Amino acid sequence: MKKITRRSFLANTSLAAAAVTLPALPDMEKTKKTIFIHHVYFWLKNPGNEADRAKLMEGLEGLSAVPTIKMCHIGTPADTNRGVIDRSYAISWLCFFKNKEEEEIYQKHPIHLKFVENYAHLWEKVIVYDSEGPKR
Amino acid sequence: MKKITRRSFLANTSLAAAAVTLPALPDMEKTKKTIFIHHVYFWLKNPGNEADRAKLMEGLEGLSAVPTIKMCHIGTPADTNRGVIDRSYAISWLCFFKNKEEEEIYQKHPIHLKFVENYAHLWEKVIVYDSEGPKR
Repeated sequence: MKKITRRSFLANTSLAAAAVTLPALPDMEKTKKTIFIHHVYFWLKNPGNEADRAKLMEGLEGLSAVPTIKMCHIGTPADTNRGVIDRSYAISWLCFFKNKEEEEIYQKHPIHLKFVENYAHLWEKVIVYDSEGPKR
Repeated sequence: MKKITRRSFLANTSLAAAAVTLPALPDMEKTKKTIFIHHVYFWLKNPGNEADRAKLMEGLEGLSAVPTIKMCHIGTPADTNRGVIDRSYAISWLCFFKNKEEEEIYQKHPIHLKFVENYAHLWEKVIVYDSEGPKR
């Protein structure tokens, strides 16, 4: 079957003459759906302190209320233990956003600012990996 | 309203006498739904080589066929750039599994072994973070 392109469609219809007034085709690069993944690993100041860990988890529960978060998950290291696995962190905080702009809204959201203000004293180190890619 | 416990239910029914033959209540700790999150970051041997990056992404596309993977995502570093963000890696590979056992099946699956055999020459370093936590 012949592939129908915009050009052949226009050439084969009476709309050809009106081509200049047709709206531009959407930019496929811009409309391609992506996901923005924000994954944060926290190391506690008192690594073995379960009360501190629980407190930070409680803080993250509150943080999950930021409305631009599409999905989030609070985790702790699994008991897998191969050479390439880093299990030295205390808490994993994974968030999905629609795009970078929605993650920026999260960064500046009052709930996020309050979270940092109230809980930052608990952690010693944070590593963030932000990644993007097409939605599957 | 009075809270109905197993004890009060049994006390208030003619089944009380048959209590010993009732099956044990499920262990709530065991039946609580969790997610196992396997997040791998790859650093390429030739970091700026887009052909190598594309090849590894193609490999991961194939790897996504392992049947115990509930959800997966292939990403590249977003262009966010704060001090705590590590954007030195080339590819992010995020997978959700039902539990640790299903991730173990993935580790030993022929598709995974073949992936390592065919693509490991491309990467210089890999960091894996495995985390678990209740499903939200």
